Amino acid sequence: MRIDILTLFPGMFVALRESITGRAAAAGHVQIVVTDLRDFACNKHRSVDDYPYGGGPGMILQPEPFFLAVEQLRREDARRGRVILLTPQGSLFTQETARRLAREDRLILLCGHYVGVDERVGEALVDEEISLGDFILTGGEIPAMAVTDAVVRLLPGVLPAESVADESFTGHLLEYPQYTRPAEFRGMAVPEVLLSGNHAEIAKWRRRQSLLRTLLRRPELLQQADLSEEEKSFLRREAENRKLNVVGLSNILDTVQF
Amino acid sequence: MRIDILTLFPGMFVALRESITGRAAAAGHVQIVVTDLRDFACNKHRSVDDYPYGGGPGMILQPEPFFLAVEQLRREDARRGRVILLTPQGSLFTQETARRLAREDRLILLCGHYVGVDERVGEALVDEEISLGDFILTGGEIPAMAVTDAVVRLLPGVLPAESVADESFTGHLLEYPQYTRPAEFRGMAVPEVLLSGNHAEIAKWRRRQSLLRTLLRRPELLQQADLSEEEKSFLRREAENRKLNVVGLSNILDTVQF
Repeated sequence: MRIDILTLFPGMFVALRESITGRAAAAGHVQIVVTDLRDFACNKHRSVDDYPYGGGPGMILQPEPFFLAVEQLRREDARRGRVILLTPQGSLFTQETARRLAREDRLILLCGHYVGVDERVGEALVDEEISLGDFILTGGEIPAMAVTDAVVRLLPGVLPAESVADESFTGHLLEYPQYTRPAEFRGMAVPEVLLSGNHAEIAKWRRRQSLLRTLLRRPELLQQADLSEEEKSFLRREAENRKLNVVGLSNILDTVQF
Repeated sequence: MRIDILTLFPGMFVALRESITGRAAAAGHVQIVVTDLRDFACNKHRSVDDYPYGGGPGMILQPEPFFLAVEQLRREDARRGRVILLTPQGSLFTQETARRLAREDRLILLCGHYVGVDERVGEALVDEEISLGDFILTGGEIPAMAVTDAVVRLLPGVLPAESVADESFTGHLLEYPQYTRPAEFRGMAVPEVLLSGNHAEIAKWRRRQSLLRTLLRRPELLQQADLSEEEKSFLRREAENRKLNVVGLSNILDTVQF
């Protein structure tokens, strides 16, 4: 896969040389090409933004540099690529998005900045607008890193297959708590069941911990989880014992028979 | 404000030297201190992870280096700080979280990595666990950058006050489309209303575009938005005309009278 990143801050992407993205690139699983949007400025001051039509604070990135840059990147490598604009106005990025994008042969990530990007970029150049979440960053650079990292780790050969299979959100539940050595640290002991060697008991404990943690921290995820009747009973009991007031929980669990 | 970042990949954070975070640090609005977790390894191989108790793939970060590092950071600067673990098992990061954290005098961000972090870190060292969203990254480094960027841009003096006031999610609606020069680009013209100079019409057009975009891309946000009866009518009409099937939309808009 080739990932192109178009940005006003190319220096930020040295971050991707480290960790698993860096190793994946070194091993040839992905080619990451960072391009400075300013190289496609249409004036001698190399400026790429201007005031918004209709007024308002801040500056808007002009359309032309984005179109010229993507055209140039396609001359360098003929694969069309899926063009993605990172913007708080996009659809929410999820693990499903990452899995879908990992099947493309090329991604071209456009980083917005300042107040916004001229709408004609989204209209005529971009295939998809993606938002990382309901928070505001100074630009699309950190979201582009997140998308790159999430996608690259799913590419074949980058991680051992078993690491990718058994992980958060695969089953729409949060992960269970994990422990490693020492068995006792500052008076805090590892739960006994994990030292028992009883694999069935360990699996059961972990599943219940996942359920409980999801109930306490992200109850809305339970709507998409595949739960047995016994698990629904367990969750309803825990919610009652803890006097939790989870909006919609009764809908999620209302098939439970008492 | 001081932001400490504890990570296995300190080199990634050169990214924060650019853009607004870098300028805010240079201007003294924030001090960002990156510390290598490996400096607090408890063995001569400088390893900080070990196998999970109870089995399973991957390696778990041990508790001791985190505790030792935070203790050392508090000796360097006596402010206790709010300790935050970046993990997919945390609560979702939102603009409200950013605003709340921007009022602290110190944040200590712990980056998890690999399969996870020993639970005793979350239990006894951490004040809050934060997740960036429902996707999986190789570590907490990119989320720590996102939290830093979102918080720093809210600190007094970093951005002009009007940029921070009138922006996405402040009113739980997506931003309206923005346009800048040229007025016509490759046959695509800026909407005429924006060239009209009629401020009331421009404000009305922008509000409707925000509503429409939120309906099409993130309808769940409408639940929290403050909508007039006329706006609810508009949304219901648009949803009908476009034959949208938005789950729960009728609940959101059911106070509309026809």
